[in-house]
Amino acid sequence: MSEDQLTPRSENFSDWYNELVLKAELADYSPVRGCMVVRPYGWTLWENIQQALDRRFKDTGHVNAAFPLFIPMSFLEKEKEHVAGFAPELAVVTHGGGEKLEEPLVVRPTSETVIGYMYSKWIKSWRDLPVLINQWGNVVRWELRTKLFLRTAEFYWQEGHTAHATEQEAREETLRMLGVYADFAINEAAIPVVQGIKSETEKFAGAVMSTTIEAMMGDTKALQSGTSHYLGQNFAKAFDIQYVDQNNTQQFCHTTSWGLSTRMIGAIIMTHGDDKGLILPPRLAPIQVVIVPIYKNADEKSVVMAVTDRVFQELKTAGIRLKVDDREEVTPGFKYNDWEMRGVPLRMEIGPKDVEKNSVALARRDRPGKEGKTFVSQEKLAATVAEMLTTIQAALLERATAFRDANIHTPKDYEDLKQIVQNGWAFSYWCESKACEAKVKEDTKASTRCIPLAGQPEQAGNCIVCGAPAKRKVYFAKSY
Amino acid sequence: MSEDQLTPRSENFSDWYNELVLKAELADYSPVRGCMVVRPYGWTLWENIQQALDRRFKDTGHVNAAFPLFIPMSFLEKEKEHVAGFAPELAVVTHGGGEKLEEPLVVRPTSETVIGYMYSKWIKSWRDLPVLINQWGNVVRWELRTKLFLRTAEFYWQEGHTAHATEQEAREETLRMLGVYADFAINEAAIPVVQGIKSETEKFAGAVMSTTIEAMMGDTKALQSGTSHYLGQNFAKAFDIQYVDQNNTQQFCHTTSWGLSTRMIGAIIMTHGDDKGLILPPRLAPIQVVIVPIYKNADEKSVVMAVTDRVFQELKTAGIRLKVDDREEVTPGFKYNDWEMRGVPLRMEIGPKDVEKNSVALARRDRPGKEGKTFVSQEKLAATVAEMLTTIQAALLERATAFRDANIHTPKDYEDLKQIVQNGWAFSYWCESKACEAKVKEDTKASTRCIPLAGQPEQAGNCIVCGAPAKRKVYFAKSY
Repeated sequence: MSEDQLTPRSENFSDWYNELVLKAELADYSPVRGCMVVRPYGWTLWENIQQALDRRFKDTGHVNAAFPLFIPMSFLEKEKEHVAGFAPELAVVTHGGGEKLEEPLVVRPTSETVIGYMYSKWIKSWRDLPVLINQWGNVVRWELRTKLFLRTAEFYWQEGHTAHATEQEAREETLRMLGVYADFAINEAAIPVVQGIKSETEKFAGAVMSTTIEAMMGDTKALQSGTSHYLGQNFAKAFDIQYVDQNNTQQFCHTTSWGLSTRMIGAIIMTHGDDKGLILPPRLAPIQVVIVPIYKNADEKSVVMAVTDRVFQELKTAGIRLKVDDREEVTPGFKYNDWEMRGVPLRMEIGPKDVEKNSVALARRDRPGKEGKTFVSQEKLAATVAEMLTTIQAALLERATAFRDANIHTPKDYEDLKQIVQNGWAFSYWCESKACEAKVKEDTKASTRCIPLAGQPEQAGNCIVCGAPAKRKVYFAKSY
Repeated sequence: MSEDQLTPRSENFSDWYNELVLKAELADYSPVRGCMVVRPYGWTLWENIQQALDRRFKDTGHVNAAFPLFIPMSFLEKEKEHVAGFAPELAVVTHGGGEKLEEPLVVRPTSETVIGYMYSKWIKSWRDLPVLINQWGNVVRWELRTKLFLRTAEFYWQEGHTAHATEQEAREETLRMLGVYADFAINEAAIPVVQGIKSETEKFAGAVMSTTIEAMMGDTKALQSGTSHYLGQNFAKAFDIQYVDQNNTQQFCHTTSWGLSTRMIGAIIMTHGDDKGLILPPRLAPIQVVIVPIYKNADEKSVVMAVTDRVFQELKTAGIRLKVDDREEVTPGFKYNDWEMRGVPLRMEIGPKDVEKNSVALARRDRPGKEGKTFVSQEKLAATVAEMLTTIQAALLERATAFRDANIHTPKDYEDLKQIVQNGWAFSYWCESKACEAKVKEDTKASTRCIPLAGQPEQAGNCIVCGAPAKRKVYFAKSY
């Protein structure tokens, strides 16, 4: 195996992932244990994710703001479950400007507390509600078993924090934003996530209800890819977020929070990638089309580059993100491998014969080899390319959906469940007791991923673990 | 004075500024001393600044990436001047995940060191150069004498870090990015900055040469609004950033760094604001036009709102950022004050008479009262509004330029200089000695702001302080 090849996915999924992240130059390890460096190619992917999400946040009435990186330790302690959940993974600033601080400051692991404090200052009346604010930023959760994008001490995300007059409005907001995440994942990242509710054990520290979008990775493990929480009045009471209602009575707000992080890049890699590297959904790809000009001598170069330049301008004008790989020191074959590793959805080859025939060759990243290669006319090329990008986007979603559906099974009994979760998701009735959830985890390492919002049976059944009556079905799966 | 009015600028510029930032809801104090909360209106302004800069960075070949928040203390110590400059203002993480860290981590005050470390890993050959990376993020410099946007412990900025094969290329990059900042400040923020070189005393800790854009605030003090540094091989040698050149010889890179921060928001406030509040340049304003519908009864409301809705759609389609203030519980007069405080460049009033006459009233924020009010036809309104926004943008720049030029004086002798810097900038020959610079500072509190790149006299002269021969002129001024 050459140095430029990846360990096959089927051989060692984890090695394949780690190698791909480095070789595609998405991210790198940093000198600070647990932290990552997101390299330009990976960060551009994140910028495209940010834009697609931010547009949706603004369309649903949200605005962005920025809250402090540091949070007084005492703030975290005001919400009992919250501090219990986050205490083990805090980074603590004890010194500033050469002096020991009176009160240690925590580097934010999430911002419910400090934002709650500000909301209590800003919110006075029902007229101030709802408050719909999002923040793009970095957070820190101390973690030394690093896996780039999936688990790092510092990561990048957005965290939405909203305050509402009523429980109903806050619950609607929670599900609205879960829907936004699902819409983004499915239609931009081509990841067929399921939307559902987290179990009591799996919910956010301090939440009344946590919801999640869960995605199936290429090794059938589940990845929690975005979460949205109804926080009830827990944080409102801890931080005194009150408003005067229309009857002139003081009321506590109902709040929500929701977040999606650079973990989504891990989800994209592990959903679509193959043994040749990354495969990016065209809607998010930093480079949608790479043009490789092919020539053997100066004469050929001159005619090929003339067409290449014209095509580049035409496609760029049409809003397609593209690049010409005009490196002289490497072969076309090297370039093909290079851009396949980086997951560029479409490769265009332009050689002397193409110039003669007024054609170009297009090679789809999602269908390697001859199957994915076509020769198309240079006439109306931008339209042809745009259409093919749309086709690739749809094909990626279709393939991921078929894979997911082929790996979700309904166990006939508990023994069957134990088999299924070794290599897939089990969808079964569950009595919603912590005992049964813990038993599955102990026996199989699988956890409850979510009680899906859609696709629940009309009739009640029996818990797959203990046989007790159960109203709803849940997904059991191993997870990242 | 009503609670909603500001202390007049002329009475107390500092109070005026502090009150404006809070009342316009740009930012707020945070519960962590020294940190700020940037509220949605202020953050949207920052987003517009970011977009205008980011477009320019990408047009000049730069890409974005993300480097860790934490830096090992030992990294800072590798560049002697750098650590000496930043040591007094560091925030230090000593504990992570419940344990004391082996080596304390600094929350980045700037990222030359950790980025230098990564560049030494990534750069091997001349083919890898130049590396042109920018990072948008937050940094921390411990500071307890807070002034929102101007001086806070945590602030937001971008920091560009580039590596080049030669000194010439790196120096060109340094000036190119200074030019990008100046272009942004002048053409987007309507702030007539001067570009120049910092003195040895004022330069960045670790730089060979620092350059700056300096702006004159409404109280004639100078504000350093963006800086670009040629770092020589200082960081390359400290972090071993080497490449193999075309003759197969190991060489150290030449590096640059450049940054512009949320301080720019302070510059905008103090350049354009007046006693009624903020005045925003249209190109950066979160809301360019606010429409205030005016009616006394349901009949009037119905006709006025019909026109308002149509106008809103027309302007929105034309890409104008606008808002309809349809609040029922406050008077039009209250709304006028409210949006004047927030600096919306143009107010549109639509009342029953306007509906009859097929007109609307437009009131320019930069020209209060009748002088700035005109009645225009509803025909081709989007074009009329766009043109007026362009006019306002130009008028703001013109006014600020006139103010700046009226407050820059050439002192005839040292006594005159001492007078001038009490309320303006002095432009005079300087021998470039630290002694003369220090004397001016001690006598007047004014510092050298920059040796401007343009407008230098052709002939040499004599230092305004000591009379020694001097090649170039410098600006002396009090500063933020």
